[in-house]
Amino acid sequence: MTDIDRRLALIKRNLQELIGEEELMALLKSSKTPSVYLGTAITGRPHIGYFVWVVKMLDLLKAGFKVKILLADVHGALDNTPWQLLEKRYQYYEKVITGMFESLGADMKKIEFVKGSSFQLQDKYILDLLKLATQVTVHDATKAASEVVKLGDSPKLAGIIYPLMQALDEEYLKVDAQYGGIDQRKILVFARENLPKLGYNARIEIMTPLIPGLQGPGAKMSASVKHSKIDLIDDSVAVKDKLDKAYCPEGVVEGNGVLAFTNYVLMAIHELAGTTLGIKRPAKFGGDVSYRTYAELENDFAAKKLHPMDLKQAVANEVNALLEPIRKKMAAHAKLIQEAYPE
Amino acid sequence: MTDIDRRLALIKRNLQELIGEEELMALLKSSKTPSVYLGTAITGRPHIGYFVWVVKMLDLLKAGFKVKILLADVHGALDNTPWQLLEKRYQYYEKVITGMFESLGADMKKIEFVKGSSFQLQDKYILDLLKLATQVTVHDATKAASEVVKLGDSPKLAGIIYPLMQALDEEYLKVDAQYGGIDQRKILVFARENLPKLGYNARIEIMTPLIPGLQGPGAKMSASVKHSKIDLIDDSVAVKDKLDKAYCPEGVVEGNGVLAFTNYVLMAIHELAGTTLGIKRPAKFGGDVSYRTYAELENDFAAKKLHPMDLKQAVANEVNALLEPIRKKMAAHAKLIQEAYPE
Repeated sequence: MTDIDRRLALIKRNLQELIGEEELMALLKSSKTPSVYLGTAITGRPHIGYFVWVVKMLDLLKAGFKVKILLADVHGALDNTPWQLLEKRYQYYEKVITGMFESLGADMKKIEFVKGSSFQLQDKYILDLLKLATQVTVHDATKAASEVVKLGDSPKLAGIIYPLMQALDEEYLKVDAQYGGIDQRKILVFARENLPKLGYNARIEIMTPLIPGLQGPGAKMSASVKHSKIDLIDDSVAVKDKLDKAYCPEGVVEGNGVLAFTNYVLMAIHELAGTTLGIKRPAKFGGDVSYRTYAELENDFAAKKLHPMDLKQAVANEVNALLEPIRKKMAAHAKLIQEAYPE
Repeated sequence: MTDIDRRLALIKRNLQELIGEEELMALLKSSKTPSVYLGTAITGRPHIGYFVWVVKMLDLLKAGFKVKILLADVHGALDNTPWQLLEKRYQYYEKVITGMFESLGADMKKIEFVKGSSFQLQDKYILDLLKLATQVTVHDATKAASEVVKLGDSPKLAGIIYPLMQALDEEYLKVDAQYGGIDQRKILVFARENLPKLGYNARIEIMTPLIPGLQGPGAKMSASVKHSKIDLIDDSVAVKDKLDKAYCPEGVVEGNGVLAFTNYVLMAIHELAGTTLGIKRPAKFGGDVSYRTYAELENDFAAKKLHPMDLKQAVANEVNALLEPIRKKMAAHAKLIQEAYPE
């Protein structure tokens, strides 16, 4: 396996779609350090589902990418975050997402955090936004935004400006690629189609799947649906309790959020670290077992050789281990949390 | 007649609609110098119809207003002016519109010209634009833009950003009132309704009618319809020729662009100056006649006491007198005209 093969495998691990694979190959073969960004709009409270992209960013780091995290405050406001809460929520995101990377032992020097409003209000950016707006129809902008922005029955203008800014961010962050969840697909394709109209290069678009929420099929893990998610600062009892109640029927893989999280987060971390996921069981239930890959774990679960109770307990322990440093860090910011998310 | 009555009469002269008359009265009664702006989007070549608002601005100046002319370059681009021609067209507008005021003997020290992009790209303005965009629906923005912006079957996003910027301009130009043609009505009402959502005052909105083009009823005088208009730099032969061919049937007032121009421009100028509009005729056709008011002239025309040929000749002479200084001024800028309006 060549070095490029190894890097490509890391990049493609757990992806649902990659647009621009040829450009990616050329990039990896060049001497350039590739760069990628992920944008997270400042909206509801980040939950453990955000680990999917945090872990994927670690894959990309290991594959030699320079990685940037866009804390997209303006985008948050365009998608219904009240303007008066925006700065506090930005501060919360900045702290808690840093905490997620720290919890995974990431080298923070290699990760650049960028605040959206730090560059999205400059003259040149705004002129480009208006130029793009003269080329893009209301119809196409609405379509692009439709799966990401909460448009409702009577879409606000802000919601359809959103995808144009996300396209420009690829250029202004000077990256080779953008990474996002598959729900971003229409926006990422929009970016790829539209940047060249301004004379800029189309970027590589990298997408991971959405993972189901803990409440079962159809319930995506969402920052805006309270019980679908484990909050990053939930205490260990709440974590255990939410996992206990999670949808995870014996032998059922489809729509199983516990399994999906195990796959895209826990096993992904273990594989990166070269460790295994261990499950403690009394001897009478089969005794302790450990998994090196998700495929093995899923096989056992589907064959009912791994019981939901045992899986949930192991997942709860692993989640609590991930969250403990974040909880500690955020304990000092109770006032900020209250200001960012009143009521 | 009190001074306020006199000023109010000047302001209301030739208006089709005034929104905020109570606020206007309070303003006139206060010790404040009132201010008003008119915005002209940088699009097609200004024609003699633009004299309607230039003359109205002189009314407002005489009524004690501080007047600002917004040369709206960004708005021009949002309404389909090619970005690469924008700066040249802006330069053309700046010169030719200055020439229009100069031709009328206006005190140029009292008229402030402002370039849209000089303030519309600043952070605070853009943040306000985005804030407003979070409150305004695509539907309402489209409706507001519909009679001003060439939206076509598949409106561009730029066209519906247009009215939001026009609303903000009232605040950022620090004026008490906006003046425009009645075609601007939806945008002006939109501005009045929406500025308060950002905590800004609703402004007074002043509107004059649109005048018919020279080709008859339904043909508004438009910068984008070539033969509907007399260009500001047409030579005297062209002016005479276009007037000769203009729709102006004997005795017909309705849809008569020659009469409308006589009313809103020529007689308005004479009334401001205290002069009369003179018409030369051979004795056998009634001899010379002069009019002090448009009403008298229209009465005679409707009663077929003033023949279209005689009216057209007088109008041609007056138009040529208005345009002569502009033609002279612009003769030095042939290259600019070619660059701004190629083909």
